[in-house]
Amino acid sequence: MKRFTLSLDPDSIIKITSAEWIGPKDIVLSNVCEPDEADSSSIIFCEQERLLEQVKASPAGLVVTSASLQARLGSRPLLIAENPYLTFMTMVSYWLELEAGQQDYSIHPTAIIDPTVRFEGEAAIGAHVVIAANTVIGDRVSIGANCIIGKDVFIGTESSLYPQVTIYDSCQIGKHCILHSGVVIGADGFGYQVMEGKQQKVPQVGNVIIHDEVEIGANSCIDRATLGSTVIGKGTKIDNLVQVGHNCVVGEHSILCAQVGLAGSTIVGDWVYLAGQVGAAGHISIGSQAMVGAQSGIASNLPGAAQYFGTPAIDANLMKRVVVSWKHLPEMYRAYQKTLKGDKSD
Amino acid sequence: MKRFTLSLDPDSIIKITSAEWIGPKDIVLSNVCEPDEADSSSIIFCEQERLLEQVKASPAGLVVTSASLQARLGSRPLLIAENPYLTFMTMVSYWLELEAGQQDYSIHPTAIIDPTVRFEGEAAIGAHVVIAANTVIGDRVSIGANCIIGKDVFIGTESSLYPQVTIYDSCQIGKHCILHSGVVIGADGFGYQVMEGKQQKVPQVGNVIIHDEVEIGANSCIDRATLGSTVIGKGTKIDNLVQVGHNCVVGEHSILCAQVGLAGSTIVGDWVYLAGQVGAAGHISIGSQAMVGAQSGIASNLPGAAQYFGTPAIDANLMKRVVVSWKHLPEMYRAYQKTLKGDKSD
Amino acid sequence: MKRFTLSLDPDSIIKITSAEWIGPKDIVLSNVCEPDEADSSSIIFCEQERLLEQVKASPAGLVVTSASLQARLGSRPLLIAENPYLTFMTMVSYWLELEAGQQDYSIHPTAIIDPTVRFEGEAAIGAHVVIAANTVIGDRVSIGANCIIGKDVFIGTESSLYPQVTIYDSCQIGKHCILHSGVVIGADGFGYQVMEGKQQKVPQVGNVIIHDEVEIGANSCIDRATLGSTVIGKGTKIDNLVQVGHNCVVGEHSILCAQVGLAGSTIVGDWVYLAGQVGAAGHISIGSQAMVGAQSGIASNLPGAAQYFGTPAIDANLMKRVVVSWKHLPEMYRAYQKTLKGDKSD
Repeated sequence: MKRFTLSLDPDSIIKITSAEWIGPKDIVLSNVCEPDEADSSSIIFCEQERLLEQVKASPAGLVVTSASLQARLGSRPLLIAENPYLTFMTMVSYWLELEAGQQDYSIHPTAIIDPTVRFEGEAAIGAHVVIAANTVIGDRVSIGANCIIGKDVFIGTESSLYPQVTIYDSCQIGKHCILHSGVVIGADGFGYQVMEGKQQKVPQVGNVIIHDEVEIGANSCIDRATLGSTVIGKGTKIDNLVQVGHNCVVGEHSILCAQVGLAGSTIVGDWVYLAGQVGAAGHISIGSQAMVGAQSGIASNLPGAAQYFGTPAIDANLMKRVVVSWKHLPEMYRAYQKTLKGDKSD
Repeated sequence: MKRFTLSLDPDSIIKITSAEWIGPKDIVLSNVCEPDEADSSSIIFCEQERLLEQVKASPAGLVVTSASLQARLGSRPLLIAENPYLTFMTMVSYWLELEAGQQDYSIHPTAIIDPTVRFEGEAAIGAHVVIAANTVIGDRVSIGANCIIGKDVFIGTESSLYPQVTIYDSCQIGKHCILHSGVVIGADGFGYQVMEGKQQKVPQVGNVIIHDEVEIGANSCIDRATLGSTVIGKGTKIDNLVQVGHNCVVGEHSILCAQVGLAGSTIVGDWVYLAGQVGAAGHISIGSQAMVGAQSGIASNLPGAAQYFGTPAIDANLMKRVVVSWKHLPEMYRAYQKTLKGDKSD
Repeated sequence: MKRFTLSLDPDSIIKITSAEWIGPKDIVLSNVCEPDEADSSSIIFCEQERLLEQVKASPAGLVVTSASLQARLGSRPLLIAENPYLTFMTMVSYWLELEAGQQDYSIHPTAIIDPTVRFEGEAAIGAHVVIAANTVIGDRVSIGANCIIGKDVFIGTESSLYPQVTIYDSCQIGKHCILHSGVVIGADGFGYQVMEGKQQKVPQVGNVIIHDEVEIGANSCIDRATLGSTVIGKGTKIDNLVQVGHNCVVGEHSILCAQVGLAGSTIVGDWVYLAGQVGAAGHISIGSQAMVGAQSGIASNLPGAAQYFGTPAIDANLMKRVVVSWKHLPEMYRAYQKTLKGDKSD
């Protein structure tokens, strides 16, 4: 259950959602939840017939539902929408923004901020945050407790860092980005050269550039470039525990699911979808709108606007037929061996 | 070598282990270790014949061993047990609990604790910990340095958080849980909807519920539900770098090995075993007592009480035969091509 | 672009690189970057003909290049080297060391250091660092903000910990090691024994020993041994999000790429190369100089000095031929089914 600090009145809900309100309006609504968690101030949604009984039994104050289910929900406050889930979520997003608007922009007294740090406006800086020299913090940026921000960093307007994020020196974060706890931006790329009988470190003196509206999940890592920049394009969303190697360039609006790993210098296009645990070799390119199935291993360039699966990743439909064939392989092999013996006994 | 702050005397050891003591009792025992690290106050164990020489050469004060090896270890203090390893480990667990009993329950002066936080009893709160409003901390809870605990969180009796754990708002941790460093509980689930030419964030307003006796390894992430709860059942153990997506429900006493990833809304039964790097698609169900081999990719529902392997995961025995067949495939393909030519030349 | 706090003069550059300087020397050089980021104080390199136009257009103060390209770069300051990239990187490494030599060795007043901690020389300790009892900090060690160092830890001379590293009690870090943000050294190994109807925790009372010159990437985890030590050998390099299980022993100069996972008690030799997302079962051994392809799953002992690929990992060349055969498998299966019907109709 998400309890909001502000309640929403029926007229605001109607205005936000452009949906039809049915029933009495003398209710105070202050949380959203599942039907079985609800109380009289809850808003829930119902768009599946199989959940009807559960919803009917729920004391929720308001049910967001469709015209087709309306009659079966009895006489209680309803919000009738074409797409109840979307309408419900639009309302929740609005509500969260209302709440965010109440953010207290202040700097916790335990934060340690170098005197050369420049604030472009107000900012919320949590306890024990450290911000090093020459860094610029955009307007209405929020930085959670214990974040460590290096030197010469830039963080754009209205970006949010949850607690325990680390940003190394010289990295740039765009506007409206969200970085979850444990994210590490700008750690050294993984580069060594064997010299004099050991792995000699190749210095990593580039940076990371994260464009606007990027979200990065908990404990994900974007390594700094050897030289130049590792880049995450505008609007791209990265899940938890993802690894992006040095000098990768990821395009716009792409989706990298949890535990994806990109080796160094790989180019990912726009609107690419990499499912969970996909790995990509270094120095290759994945075309825009490519979709790659879970756990696939991308070993070479993939043209865009196509679906891939497998290790190494090939056409998804072909690979699906391959894996279906696998289970017949032991039998086929026995038959093949028999043929061989037959040939010999000829 | 683990050095304990308290020493154990022979009579306590006999009492804890119900095992038979042989030899003089005038020794002070204060650590456990491997034979080659030992000193005169060490306890070691020996249950394998191949380690006999190493154990005989060890200056350890006490050897936990079996009746069958007793004669070959000469005249030195021995503890004779049916299962020396288990007896040794039972003793170590007891010893660690003794030490934990000496825990200094105090709140470090640098911790920042909202005045509305409620303590159910005594608690050990480390340096630079931040605990936000309305959170409840159970009796004898221990929270390591630099942990960040959100608002409306509940942490049950005798749970331990190692340093640098992050718990987002509204998440619940049961009793006797252990969360290792870098764990992130309750980061946003990974949900977007393409609208107006971009990936629009679906608000994530549920929470995470961790039941009693759960252990979660370093840098693992359990995402909050979109609505409702992501749930980890009682007694389930999760290794390092594991990803549990939003709205997953994991049962009791299950084992998720390192780097396992569960996509959203997946249901895992009780006593399930997922080996390292296993991935599961979203919205599927894995039956109780299922065992899934390392790196498998679970693409659809798996009935319980069976063993699976492969990507996609199928019956483990069949998949093992499949992978054995693979190595004959190039040869089979050459033979097949020859047949084709033969057919044509007919 | 990496801006250095110290500038390098032409004579120093000649001395460091033993390369030939061509053109005027009246320039001040203070950064390294890509050609398109450069200004008049930049050093860039050019060893590929296809970048010539870009380099010619760059206002960089100095170009490190080869004798063969010299004539085509016109009259501007050039540094002529046999291997321009290596020469450039050697110079950058030297420059970074110069900068490191200016490190301000001081202890931040917010660091909480137990009075029993012993410093072997000077050290740089960041804000909010916590160092527990009896730990030893080597000379010129640098510990970033918010690191948490347990009891009885040893950190060798000139090792660097980036912010937010956690080291559990009793672990040892060698000299000249680099640990990136979010690294967790010494969390409990993952061991349980089913007893009395639940997963009973096997106590983990060993430690971790990291030898000299090891680098460990962001958010990687090295678990403590059950008993004895988990060991990382001298000069081994570990990328981000890697899991090393309890009691593993990794040799010298090996490379573990991002998201590699080693289950417990696995032995890895020297100069081993494990590509990204490789997993290894527990209690096996991987011979020295083995190279294992990305996403492979190592299920049993692998002899050294050979290349492997696949899950389970087999000879890399064979596996490459197997995966090439896969795509013919659906067709082969159809042919096989036809034969079966043919046989029956006989």
